[in-house]
Amino acid sequence: MAQEERRILVAVDEGEESLHALSWCLENLVLQNSKDTLILLYVKPPRVVYSTFDGTGYLFSSDITAAMERYGQEVADVVLEKAKKLCNNIEKVINMVENGDPRDVICEMVQKLGADVLVMGSHGYGLIKRAFLGSVSNHCAQNAKCPVLIVKKPKPANGNQ
Amino acid sequence: MAQEERRILVAVDEGEESLHALSWCLENLVLQNSKDTLILLYVKPPRVVYSTFDGTGYLFSSDITAAMERYGQEVADVVLEKAKKLCNNIEKVINMVENGDPRDVICEMVQKLGADVLVMGSHGYGLIKRAFLGSVSNHCAQNAKCPVLIVKKPKPANGNQ
Repeated sequence: MAQEERRILVAVDEGEESLHALSWCLENLVLQNSKDTLILLYVKPPRVVYSTFDGTGYLFSSDITAAMERYGQEVADVVLEKAKKLCNNIEKVINMVENGDPRDVICEMVQKLGADVLVMGSHGYGLIKRAFLGSVSNHCAQNAKCPVLIVKKPKPANGNQ
Repeated sequence: MAQEERRILVAVDEGEESLHALSWCLENLVLQNSKDTLILLYVKPPRVVYSTFDGTGYLFSSDITAAMERYGQEVADVVLEKAKKLCNNIEKVINMVENGDPRDVICEMVQKLGADVLVMGSHGYGLIKRAFLGSVSNHCAQNAKCPVLIVKKPKPANGNQ
């Protein structure tokens, strides 16, 4: 096992699967007492994704979009807080929030941060957003410039759900 | 880092990428002096894949198909020997050769062997076969019942090729 400092990027979202991916990573990939840096990345999707919830074709008024922005930030805060709690044994944990299409942003951040490995759930970025954005994990597995670890949520039969 | 015995399944093929994936796994995932078992799996594709090389529509005579079978076995032996050499620090290494569509066989073996994680290259199963079989790693990332680690071959600019 290599002992040099590694930068492990974990893409987290509001789905339980991404937290399960983080847990698996902490148990199987991150070395305790190592120089590993864990970077938790939450990507807020662009507003157009929210507006598809409406479905009426009307543009949202500015107070509604402002409320949605606040909601988006609150979700990001809650997700990252939950994720950070799982990492309480890790010395170096960095939280990041970025905006954009998760598929592109995650791949960009891999390069920008010089990540040694990317960890994510297989459904990638939430049940609802996935319907609009397609499989984020598929995209990242093909395009991210580092090894990609995709962790599925175990089925209820495993007793982990 | 969990210390229980893990079964790490690495799908290897004749491409350099899969050996790079194995090396990455040995450096980053396998614990030295651990109870980890490393299982090296080579899947020989079905004969129909070879016959598409012909392209004439003629059926091969039995001596040609026999020669192809021998060739397939020789490739398997060479690949697994190369792979095993990389694992000389690992106590428990198991070699396996299976026949069939790599996409299905790898996912089946994950379940049959109770693998804790599957490791493979991103191109999955050779440049030529990929043209016929599609991306094996995409299929396995979606269908294998365990976490999947996909390791790409670094570009020449990284000096690792």
